[in-house]
Amino acid sequence: MANTKAKVTINDVARYANVSVATVSRVLNRTGAVRIDTQNKVIEAAAVLGYTNTKLEKQSVQQPSADAPACEYERKIILISLPSISNPFYGQIINGIQAAAQNYDFECLLYPGNIAANNIDSLLEFIRYLHVAGVITANLMPKEVMDKLASEIPVVQCCESDQHPMVSSVSINDFAASLSAMDYILSTGKRRIGLINGPLSYKYARQRRKAYLTAMETARLKVMPHWIIQLPDINCDMAYSSVIKLLSRPDAPNAFFTASDVYAAAAIRAIQHCHLRVPEDVVVVGFDNTDISSLTTPSITTVNQPKFRIGFLSCELMAEKIHNPAVETKHLQLTAELIIRESTVPQLNGAY
Amino acid sequence: MANTKAKVTINDVARYANVSVATVSRVLNRTGAVRIDTQNKVIEAAAVLGYTNTKLEKQSVQQPSADAPACEYERKIILISLPSISNPFYGQIINGIQAAAQNYDFECLLYPGNIAANNIDSLLEFIRYLHVAGVITANLMPKEVMDKLASEIPVVQCCESDQHPMVSSVSINDFAASLSAMDYILSTGKRRIGLINGPLSYKYARQRRKAYLTAMETARLKVMPHWIIQLPDINCDMAYSSVIKLLSRPDAPNAFFTASDVYAAAAIRAIQHCHLRVPEDVVVVGFDNTDISSLTTPSITTVNQPKFRIGFLSCELMAEKIHNPAVETKHLQLTAELIIRESTVPQLNGAY
Repeated sequence: MANTKAKVTINDVARYANVSVATVSRVLNRTGAVRIDTQNKVIEAAAVLGYTNTKLEKQSVQQPSADAPACEYERKIILISLPSISNPFYGQIINGIQAAAQNYDFECLLYPGNIAANNIDSLLEFIRYLHVAGVITANLMPKEVMDKLASEIPVVQCCESDQHPMVSSVSINDFAASLSAMDYILSTGKRRIGLINGPLSYKYARQRRKAYLTAMETARLKVMPHWIIQLPDINCDMAYSSVIKLLSRPDAPNAFFTASDVYAAAAIRAIQHCHLRVPEDVVVVGFDNTDISSLTTPSITTVNQPKFRIGFLSCELMAEKIHNPAVETKHLQLTAELIIRESTVPQLNGAY
Repeated sequence: MANTKAKVTINDVARYANVSVATVSRVLNRTGAVRIDTQNKVIEAAAVLGYTNTKLEKQSVQQPSADAPACEYERKIILISLPSISNPFYGQIINGIQAAAQNYDFECLLYPGNIAANNIDSLLEFIRYLHVAGVITANLMPKEVMDKLASEIPVVQCCESDQHPMVSSVSINDFAASLSAMDYILSTGKRRIGLINGPLSYKYARQRRKAYLTAMETARLKVMPHWIIQLPDINCDMAYSSVIKLLSRPDAPNAFFTASDVYAAAAIRAIQHCHLRVPEDVVVVGFDNTDISSLTTPSITTVNQPKFRIGFLSCELMAEKIHNPAVETKHLQLTAELIIRESTVPQLNGAY
């Protein structure tokens, strides 16, 4: 679909990113070395403003790369692979990918299955059959599976980042974001902090756990092993039952740092079920800032992931890779901020 | 993937559906007339138990239909088209479709765009390019668009049903389910009942509105026009703002029947923001029984849609159509039941 917005210029991008026009040009045309954080700022600015790099597009039209995958279809297919469609977190990620995809006449299709050692060959066959131009994935994959996939087709990781040499990625700095959240929980005065975490096979979960342990250690607080609830899935029922069980113990936590708003929402219900008050008796912090964090009572203090932007930039990196297979691999880390709501601050009653 | 469960027999299906084996055989092999509600019971039972109709499968292998779409790929592609990926309602629908798809070696792909008059030709081109075997859709489509799609490829509607002569469908009886919900709200003693509804272009929204008006009329209650909040999308922010605005009026409703748990959750927050209590001052009933209905405080009384089963049966009907293009069009209506939680019953405090 055509972009009907007023044309965004390179000057707009420079102003937004607070850098010179020359720097924007160097980043977007890849004609010179620029620091990675400045690169990130420029790419973010271009994405947010919807700046289309016409020079780059023209180049790719005039000089198609010999390495570009064959595609009989006039639009290119981008396969999106996610761990779960049910997790509300991914809705905005997909919207972001699709928004960027329109600028490049990409056709997005969601592949709802896993990508694993036992099906990578069959998936590659499917990818060849469909003439897929690239795969954007938030799925976890063993290194050898990722190697196989990335050696055949451009791959961009979104949300996760294995720092694979051939796979660009867009994610947040999970360690830094989690450390801030933990510092904030400690500032509420609670000391017995529990963690509800997703599967440790994901880097995000390992980083969030590491930040939790680091913050506790820095504050010289002991962590009881049963305070860490490790769940195999983002599932509210499991989180609810685990918290109920944990709260029946005499040394139960009086705070929970959780790796998902779904866990936080379930924890709040479990705490209330045990006739304890959130946040007076137990404070709860979520992760993602999905819709649910505004809809619970109390509403959830949470780490906002820039979901739309993660999706958008993932697709921008994909476009870059398709237009120029030799482009260097980039690992963008976006900033996540804590959003304070009622689950940590009693005075905020009624905040949506 | 192979089905590793113990083999389910036709006797199991007959017992589950509480009909004779002969009836099961007549329905599944389409060898005789059976009442539509009995057909539904049998097809539901077969789906729930995972009964694979081997005779039918063998037939289709031995006598491939000349009309079957050409497909070079050993597995057939089913394109799933949904109004929104962000709406948590669709997660279980997709899981149901995928569960059935595995039994037929279908490969599911989600098409995240709309299907409309301005893109149907381009979509058909895409469908031909991919050699898609069938489209399962919950999307709304103008009749001429559906005609065009269904004349080229097997289509099954899930959730919605236009009673199109060529398009089988699986949905609930929205009118009956909504009437029950309204009767229940009336039984709580509330009389000023508001409706928060989705776009009337959807049949479900028209049916739910019709049931709302019918119930109010039957109870000889006046409906104030501003009590009906019609929203263009399943969006919590819009619902929240609309309810806040409505509650500032002197003749505000003291009950809300809503067409989605998302609306119900937003309404609860809005009511609490206005310093009113749910359910004592205002009762709220949702629709869908998605995860969110257990996670709000109070939890939400809601109409449970058998989401997984709707998805599963949609894919079963698709398999039937692909194996035998001459199969008669079926419109299955599943039963939806009201699940009572705290948003209507003060005594239930703490129910998850």
